[in-house]
Amino acid sequence: MKSGIPEILVVGAGAVGTFYGAKLASAGAKVSLLCRSDYDVVKENGIKVKSIDGDLHFNPFRVIRNASEYGKPPDFVLVALKYLPELIDTADIIRAAVGPGTSIFHIQNGIGIEKETATAFHNNEILSAVAFICVTRTAPGFIDHSDYGRLVLGRYPGGSSENVELLKNLFNKSGVECAITDDIIKARFLKLVWNVPFNVISVLGNHADTKSILDNKLSCELSVKLMEEVCRISEAYGRKLPDDIAGKNLDYTRKMKPYKTSMLLDYEAGKPMEVEAILGNLVRMADEKGIDIPRIRTLYGLLSLADGAVAR
Amino acid sequence: MKSGIPEILVVGAGAVGTFYGAKLASAGAKVSLLCRSDYDVVKENGIKVKSIDGDLHFNPFRVIRNASEYGKPPDFVLVALKYLPELIDTADIIRAAVGPGTSIFHIQNGIGIEKETATAFHNNEILSAVAFICVTRTAPGFIDHSDYGRLVLGRYPGGSSENVELLKNLFNKSGVECAITDDIIKARFLKLVWNVPFNVISVLGNHADTKSILDNKLSCELSVKLMEEVCRISEAYGRKLPDDIAGKNLDYTRKMKPYKTSMLLDYEAGKPMEVEAILGNLVRMADEKGIDIPRIRTLYGLLSLADGAVAR
Repeated sequence: MKSGIPEILVVGAGAVGTFYGAKLASAGAKVSLLCRSDYDVVKENGIKVKSIDGDLHFNPFRVIRNASEYGKPPDFVLVALKYLPELIDTADIIRAAVGPGTSIFHIQNGIGIEKETATAFHNNEILSAVAFICVTRTAPGFIDHSDYGRLVLGRYPGGSSENVELLKNLFNKSGVECAITDDIIKARFLKLVWNVPFNVISVLGNHADTKSILDNKLSCELSVKLMEEVCRISEAYGRKLPDDIAGKNLDYTRKMKPYKTSMLLDYEAGKPMEVEAILGNLVRMADEKGIDIPRIRTLYGLLSLADGAVAR
Repeated sequence: MKSGIPEILVVGAGAVGTFYGAKLASAGAKVSLLCRSDYDVVKENGIKVKSIDGDLHFNPFRVIRNASEYGKPPDFVLVALKYLPELIDTADIIRAAVGPGTSIFHIQNGIGIEKETATAFHNNEILSAVAFICVTRTAPGFIDHSDYGRLVLGRYPGGSSENVELLKNLFNKSGVECAITDDIIKARFLKLVWNVPFNVISVLGNHADTKSILDNKLSCELSVKLMEEVCRISEAYGRKLPDDIAGKNLDYTRKMKPYKTSMLLDYEAGKPMEVEAILGNLVRMADEKGIDIPRIRTLYGLLSLADGAVAR
């Protein structure tokens, strides 16, 4: 990291990218935004953030349509696109803005989502964060942050760095709780323990919120079995998760307000779902280690079919 | 079976019951109909059957609302209700019409669907048939028979009888192809090999017809794995199914016109689905033999949740 004010290019004008971009800007970073469909509105008015932690108006340092417009490469490219490898070529989208000293920083759901950029930019530092947040894009240029906001951040595939510290300090200065991990892959597995059952069952179970899933004995039991399968894969990759993780996740979810998952919101909006981030990459990781995960694989077949119907 | 013209009371004014009732009447049986919501229309106009095998107008011998109205018990009570054990108490509905010499004859989907009546009427003969038919109730008193029609018929839990022969002859006389089996449970397993994957995936996979299920590599593979699990349960009950059954079912389904399953039609109409007939009883049978069927169990959890949402 060079000294001085860090320059950050946020790629993806969805809720997550613009929220954390706005926060980093509020902490003093020079934050730009690459966006396509929302370009005109954002160029004119910036991003209005309605937030439980206090509203913000984010005027990006630059608003661009293509990475090639950025000029001298930024210190960070923050990738906050949906992970849809069959539709979106992230490496291609960001390539023109990635210089030798640029760190590529993913804030995305799922597991294995850094692999394509780590391969395409194998000399660059890859950073990765898991976000625990409820934030929605309500209109072009408008987002609504309704709950949580915490990040767990580390270097990919492991370890930490000065840039991890720098980002953590910026986030903390902006009021975002940010923990550092030296094992981001484990952090992703920990989040998948929740995401695999609740995101996927919410869609396949006929528009089910978290309470409905827990209240039905059979789907609640299925959730636990799915969590156990995630744990088995994690353990095969040297990351044993706590023995009581399933029970803890159920308790935690019972205490939440009945909640529609982000995957269900995508489904209901007729948008492609993050099937590969949540299930596909996980299934392939299990295959590589010869782990039998029949329930996750069943979900993958069903969700892939359901997602295909969205696309049709 | 007494000599003379057989008397048959059809219970359930859905498409399957009224179609086979109409056929049996056309072959000379005295066929009555117990129906509730369609009572007025059917009492007035009977049942109009539009059929690829020739249209029929079925005027039931009697139309009744309750079994107690029937009088001297019939020779056969044909149960063609949906199998919804939590909502419908079949034994209770038919009890007043079941005499010592009455055979109870099920034409219903799934497996284990005879158990409640076999327990409640343990001195009566139980007959059971699997129907391969596309028939739809288009309005009260109107049904549309668009394809197939074949029955496989036997005594429950096994063997044959004079009454099986009698019904077979009536069906054949009416133009319905009817094969006799001395192992109706095996016949039901054979049909479940198709019903478990295609009925259930059609619902969980976001309104998928048979072609969509086969065209998606992951859901097609899942279908085969589900068929294998059905075969494992069948084998544990002493009914080994043919080794090539999965391939044959795929070939056969590929040759069909793209088809929406009956379960998907129920789902789309907001009606309860036959979750217990197709999955629940099967899961409990597997439990009794200690057979591990993680994929079918996953489907059961998801479909139970989806069905619960229909009810809400």
